Amino acid sequence: MGSNAIVGQSGGPTSVINASLAGVLEACEARGAKTVYGMTNGIQGLLEEKVVDLTEQVASSLEIELLKRTPSSYLGSCRYKLPDITDDPQVYEKLFAILEKLDIGWFFYIGGNDSMDTINKLHQYGRMVGSDIRFMGVPKTIDNDLMLTDHTPGYGSAAKYIGVVMKELVRDATVYGNKFVTVVEIMGRNAGWLTAAAALARGEDCEGVDLICLPELPFHMDRFLTKIEAMQKDKKSIVVAVSEGVKLPDGRYVCELSNDAAFIDAFGHRNLTGTARYLCNEIAKNMDTRVRSVELSTLQRCAGHLTSRTDITEAYQVGGAAAKAAFEGTSGKMVALKRLSDEPYQCTTELVDIEKVANYEKKIPLEWINSYRTDMTQEFLTYARPLIQAELTPFFIAGLPRHIVNHG
Amino acid sequence: MGSNAIVGQSGGPTSVINASLAGVLEACEARGAKTVYGMTNGIQGLLEEKVVDLTEQVASSLEIELLKRTPSSYLGSCRYKLPDITDDPQVYEKLFAILEKLDIGWFFYIGGNDSMDTINKLHQYGRMVGSDIRFMGVPKTIDNDLMLTDHTPGYGSAAKYIGVVMKELVRDATVYGNKFVTVVEIMGRNAGWLTAAAALARGEDCEGVDLICLPELPFHMDRFLTKIEAMQKDKKSIVVAVSEGVKLPDGRYVCELSNDAAFIDAFGHRNLTGTARYLCNEIAKNMDTRVRSVELSTLQRCAGHLTSRTDITEAYQVGGAAAKAAFEGTSGKMVALKRLSDEPYQCTTELVDIEKVANYEKKIPLEWINSYRTDMTQEFLTYARPLIQAELTPFFIAGLPRHIVNHG
Repeated sequence: MGSNAIVGQSGGPTSVINASLAGVLEACEARGAKTVYGMTNGIQGLLEEKVVDLTEQVASSLEIELLKRTPSSYLGSCRYKLPDITDDPQVYEKLFAILEKLDIGWFFYIGGNDSMDTINKLHQYGRMVGSDIRFMGVPKTIDNDLMLTDHTPGYGSAAKYIGVVMKELVRDATVYGNKFVTVVEIMGRNAGWLTAAAALARGEDCEGVDLICLPELPFHMDRFLTKIEAMQKDKKSIVVAVSEGVKLPDGRYVCELSNDAAFIDAFGHRNLTGTARYLCNEIAKNMDTRVRSVELSTLQRCAGHLTSRTDITEAYQVGGAAAKAAFEGTSGKMVALKRLSDEPYQCTTELVDIEKVANYEKKIPLEWINSYRTDMTQEFLTYARPLIQAELTPFFIAGLPRHIVNHG
Repeated sequence: MGSNAIVGQSGGPTSVINASLAGVLEACEARGAKTVYGMTNGIQGLLEEKVVDLTEQVASSLEIELLKRTPSSYLGSCRYKLPDITDDPQVYEKLFAILEKLDIGWFFYIGGNDSMDTINKLHQYGRMVGSDIRFMGVPKTIDNDLMLTDHTPGYGSAAKYIGVVMKELVRDATVYGNKFVTVVEIMGRNAGWLTAAAALARGEDCEGVDLICLPELPFHMDRFLTKIEAMQKDKKSIVVAVSEGVKLPDGRYVCELSNDAAFIDAFGHRNLTGTARYLCNEIAKNMDTRVRSVELSTLQRCAGHLTSRTDITEAYQVGGAAAKAAFEGTSGKMVALKRLSDEPYQCTTELVDIEKVANYEKKIPLEWINSYRTDMTQEFLTYARPLIQAELTPFFIAGLPRHIVNHG
């Protein structure tokens, strides 16, 4: 049995993924790991033996607190998918040789669907070759699209960010008292959890957004324009939250209708962006109103200055629970969040089979969308509100939040 | 002499314009104004006699604190320019009749260049017709482009927001360790103060942005691409801050090169947007790198959740100083901020001739741009850093900042 632990971060960063790293690190150390290593740029870096000594790098309690408040992935990330074991066993041989060299007993990977696929494959291969390394998955994604967990760490803070900025945008959009349509584009290729969070803006002091368009439902351009026009008869400023992933009934993304070459990069990759701008364009062509499109872009996933303390706490907890389970002998599992009650909000962790998580996507239940297809129901609000509660204030130094940096 | 005061807000909103409103309100009440009225939608609303009773609406100290923490213009805004007095004296006759009816003795207008033009014209007309109403201008603009004042309330908070999100974006952009160019578009049509604030991101824990493009200098597309390519030889992730107002040597805005119809609304108004996207497109066409464009859009002017306490305090002070001056008999002046020293930062208010402010624009001194035309000098940082210091935490209720709303 190895005496060291190793942890990696994978996929798109969030503003709380480093809190999970802090949870893994502290719990492994408390349970007697000699050294906790970090993979630089996930499994891809590990294949090149790029590791750092976290036990040394993040040693003080102040550094732990800074880590919790530092957005993006401290260790760097990757989007590397392991091949099937039968297709390319050499990759696995190489990885396990590196793990043996580092004397690893416990292996943690913080990420989303693809990362759970990685953990699943490593666990399977480990069993096959009789390795005693324990492999644990730690959930992370702003998209909230993982199965078998009530929600994912990262979602609460992104949802809070969206709720707050929608509130601010609604106020800004009403200031001139003229006819105005604001379309705000929010992340989420197939699942509308983030876009739905725009519904959180409504309250005693905010009229809220007027229309929410999720990727779970087909997008009809004519009905969209008709709705906007009808709404604007009663209310001059209309604010729309639209998912970047909304699709036409024929399956094409709405943003594909735009003929802007800027969406294609040198590799021919199409960025899923431009939906809001395209819709504003269509509105302006058809109606007598001013328009503005806003893309929340990466701002919504890296806003370390505005996080949910509930989310940060849970992100830390799932990291710690993964370490606990691994040290108790568990492998091939993901830590999930299990909600015990809504009011008061109570949530605990449990272990779930990683193969039931890897490569699946959880979408918004259609019954959480109102019958007019314009807004979320109370069920969604009851689900989402607890996740955005309370704040974790950054350490502001000379006017800016202080982060901790991995100098390798 | 009238016994009531009236105050209006004009032009683009900021996250601290309501702190100036609070300053005017409290100082007028303390000096004996019977009622303080607010114009709904500025001078345009006043012409339709749309006013609210602020003394009644914002009565408690809790409401004052909420007002300081509420972004956008509490009273609504307008972009109405008064005609020349000789061209259309009837507008003035109508306005002064309304002011007489409301028994106004003191008149305050919070805004930028155009708003100071309004105050100047009203003051001139008042003198012409022998009115004893005192007209005072209260500066406000995120653009920081007003003459005769060290800086403008609103700039510090917008600059802080830009510094913070640039720091977060720099972190996010380095996470995969691959070749990546992020171009961030920042407000400022003719003056680059906001874009320059991106320089604040650099520090012990942040490598900062790599290139800053201001509207004060002509933009050469070929040199821009050459710089990016050269920079990317040493550093994979390049982050660029670009002003929405950068222009080609021939005077056209860079965003005009884009052929995207989305920039033209139904009135044929061209929005100054799309610069970052156009530049990303050009980079992707010419280089082997991933690209991402981010537009800070209105988020940078309405981010009440992330303000500078220095800015909020000064915004309140200029409101109070305007009331003090008006009650002491001054008219036709603007309150300016006068810096006494950089370290320690000390700043006071003074009165300046409004006609020397109205319709002028203050740009960034060219000597505050480095010789490579890529970054700001230490002089700029010494100027800007004090303005972003300290925070005013929002009142978070159930996870969201609480605002105060004008229900008319």
